[in-house]
Amino acid sequence: MPFATPFAAVSVDSSTNASAESCTPVLPVLGRDVTVPLVTGGEVTYAALDHAASAPALQRVWDDVAAYAPYYGSVHRGAGYLSQLSTDLFEQSRRAVAEFLGCREDDEVVFTRATTDSLNLLASALPAGTRVFVFETEHHASLLPWRGHDVTYLDAPRSPEQAVATLEEALHAAPAGPKLVCVTGASNVTGEIWPVRELTAAAHRHGARLVLDAAQLAPHRPVDVSELDVDWVAFSGHKLYAPFGAGVLAGRADWLRAAEPYLAGGGASRTVARREDGGVDVEWHTNAARHEAGSPNVIGAYAIASACGALRAAGFERLVAREEELLARLRAGLAEVPEVTVLSLFGDDADRVGVLSFVVEGWNSSHFAAALSAEHGIGVRDGLFCAHPLLRTLLGAESGAAGECGAPDAAAGAVSLNAIRVSFGVGTPDEHVSRFVSAVRELVRNGAKWSYRTEAGRCVPAPAAAE
Amino acid sequence: MPFATPFAAVSVDSSTNASAESCTPVLPVLGRDVTVPLVTGGEVTYAALDHAASAPALQRVWDDVAAYAPYYGSVHRGAGYLSQLSTDLFEQSRRAVAEFLGCREDDEVVFTRATTDSLNLLASALPAGTRVFVFETEHHASLLPWRGHDVTYLDAPRSPEQAVATLEEALHAAPAGPKLVCVTGASNVTGEIWPVRELTAAAHRHGARLVLDAAQLAPHRPVDVSELDVDWVAFSGHKLYAPFGAGVLAGRADWLRAAEPYLAGGGASRTVARREDGGVDVEWHTNAARHEAGSPNVIGAYAIASACGALRAAGFERLVAREEELLARLRAGLAEVPEVTVLSLFGDDADRVGVLSFVVEGWNSSHFAAALSAEHGIGVRDGLFCAHPLLRTLLGAESGAAGECGAPDAAAGAVSLNAIRVSFGVGTPDEHVSRFVSAVRELVRNGAKWSYRTEAGRCVPAPAAAE
Repeated sequence: MPFATPFAAVSVDSSTNASAESCTPVLPVLGRDVTVPLVTGGEVTYAALDHAASAPALQRVWDDVAAYAPYYGSVHRGAGYLSQLSTDLFEQSRRAVAEFLGCREDDEVVFTRATTDSLNLLASALPAGTRVFVFETEHHASLLPWRGHDVTYLDAPRSPEQAVATLEEALHAAPAGPKLVCVTGASNVTGEIWPVRELTAAAHRHGARLVLDAAQLAPHRPVDVSELDVDWVAFSGHKLYAPFGAGVLAGRADWLRAAEPYLAGGGASRTVARREDGGVDVEWHTNAARHEAGSPNVIGAYAIASACGALRAAGFERLVAREEELLARLRAGLAEVPEVTVLSLFGDDADRVGVLSFVVEGWNSSHFAAALSAEHGIGVRDGLFCAHPLLRTLLGAESGAAGECGAPDAAAGAVSLNAIRVSFGVGTPDEHVSRFVSAVRELVRNGAKWSYRTEAGRCVPAPAAAE
Repeated sequence: MPFATPFAAVSVDSSTNASAESCTPVLPVLGRDVTVPLVTGGEVTYAALDHAASAPALQRVWDDVAAYAPYYGSVHRGAGYLSQLSTDLFEQSRRAVAEFLGCREDDEVVFTRATTDSLNLLASALPAGTRVFVFETEHHASLLPWRGHDVTYLDAPRSPEQAVATLEEALHAAPAGPKLVCVTGASNVTGEIWPVRELTAAAHRHGARLVLDAAQLAPHRPVDVSELDVDWVAFSGHKLYAPFGAGVLAGRADWLRAAEPYLAGGGASRTVARREDGGVDVEWHTNAARHEAGSPNVIGAYAIASACGALRAAGFERLVAREEELLARLRAGLAEVPEVTVLSLFGDDADRVGVLSFVVEGWNSSHFAAALSAEHGIGVRDGLFCAHPLLRTLLGAESGAAGECGAPDAAAGAVSLNAIRVSFGVGTPDEHVSRFVSAVRELVRNGAKWSYRTEAGRCVPAPAAAE
């Protein structure tokens, strides 16, 4: 039985001197040696700069999952050794996540499939008559789950202070009754950090609760539920270097306990019995299991816990210092290319994580992103990033549909209809950022070497010379 | 770029002569060399006999996941090479599952988190006024998701013919309007195979549709949607040797397309725009993506596709022959112990998969299962198996709550309040079954060597001599 859960062994080393090692990645990730072919010939190591969509697995997460996999067993009612080990691992993972998030003693940690699922779960658990307040700037995952409730969409603020003022005003004008504010911690488009503590204080002043969408914040900054005073937090494993199909909703137990189970089925039900009249009576669990029907995704939950442990052990002070260094290089590099406009709500001085979107004058963004991949081995993202209203606010009303690659008027010289996003993380080496900056400069100055066209909804390189 | 999707390389070899290799496992699984400690001293290889809850990963599935993991990337809108590779892998996985299930051309394959999730998704997609028909014998995952609809619970039939007749009668008596029948393919308690084709024909005769819960059937028998003529099928990866947090709902597209998205968020939404009045308009996708909001669990989906490929390549003819041989040994061994009563709805001659539940006269089932683990290294399950009404029908009204380990009157000699389930699969060696049969005989004849007590909801061995 060589398998031992690693939680006890994780030491939190937030005092590590950041400057000593800041020029190298803080934590190794999978895929760091993967090479990809270039249309111009040869291969190059892949620069994964789309962390804001999905981050590579931490090497440590993969190693933990690989060490556990042979010991995988059925959880909960299994009487066997591996079942009990797996049950313990699942519940230890829950506790590790609670600790990572600084949860209060009576908070619940529910394992979901991802942030979208977490917020849909919370939406299903709102008391009748709850009014929801959400900025139009949110990702669709935090913008859309509140259907069926009375939703107030708030206009995009242009500063953190304006965000707080806008929320205060809306809450002040709202009728009595339960209220929920849903707010992102860091924008998946601009990377800008939202004033979560202040927004929560405003919500609480008006008797509202607040759920923090930490999908983009948790991989980059410490998220402490107690310290921020948020009521719930949601995040995804696949953005936190643990891409095994699990996510988290953590926070206040009362609404969750009072709600109907999110999924109906085994695991959520304590007892089920037929009635005399032929119907069925169900007694549901009142803890996290209430909303976790079906066999738990043990590997997914453990992977998240492993990532939490690895990030804490590395220390966020060090992670943030490294990230800010890379971000400064990235922004300095882009600032030297006048054709590049970086998208921002809060301006140059805003605190931000390693997520940045931009447009390039005279370029269609899909074309540009395809060239970054095909000619430089760099993986970024183009589109509207599942935040259509925000992108329309940032780009103007003419911005195109996110589903379209190479919009109709994508010819050189036309206004860009969507944007390009670059995002990185704890495993990103300097070279990825410097290659990206050089590639942007090269493409803008000299044009793409190939041309790009849409084929089956995807931008592909065509062997004719472009521009 | 050494990574290549293995789908094309899978050859379906259903003609393999089963008898030649039938004394050994058909497909290797992870954990086959794991040893566990015994309370009586020493260690023994773990006999995983709780496949009906969760099966170990196929070695092939693990190898495929491990080979892909460094190439993991964001799916859908990512412009990078690994993003496009991952998107292709995800969609190829969908097609591989469709092929495995013999889907019709216009069927949708939706990736969910597991069977429970799949059936909750279908429940959310039923047209208004749908009347649901479900046998009381179902697992809670297929019994309970239909809340909010008009549900007719059907009494447990005592033969496959009676099942069809019971359904016919209920459908005949039902008023006009949309109807859905949900039926299990193989019982998670008795392992007995239900007459799916006949039930489907009965449903269709009365204008009803049928969803097959194949959670227990798919790992053991070919499930062909076209051949069975079922309208939908649901199953879980973690029971199909692919425990990476994904499951499947596959079948008719019309109700799925007409329904509100299961989860609201990115991926499910095609376009989102604010209206003049401050509200938000959403146009949703109409294909499988409609119900797959959030970043897809690519690894989970790929793992399922890999398992489907491995099972097809091994050939179900061979898998079934092997399983029937093990099942015959298991049943013959238990038949020699008169204190053992095997639970059955359909009688000795019923066709069944490698899942079998029983009680032992004079034993509390939790105690018995704990002794199998602690003294013999065998992992089974005790309880009511998330099928409480069925267990009460099989065991009588006195059966206990599934959540209880060591029920109050668990002293030797008392009637068993729940049951013990043994279940196996394609990686089970002969030795696991023979050890299990010997252990049952040993425990019944000579009693347990240790005693067992409940501690924090779990049966644990106590060092005092028992019995």
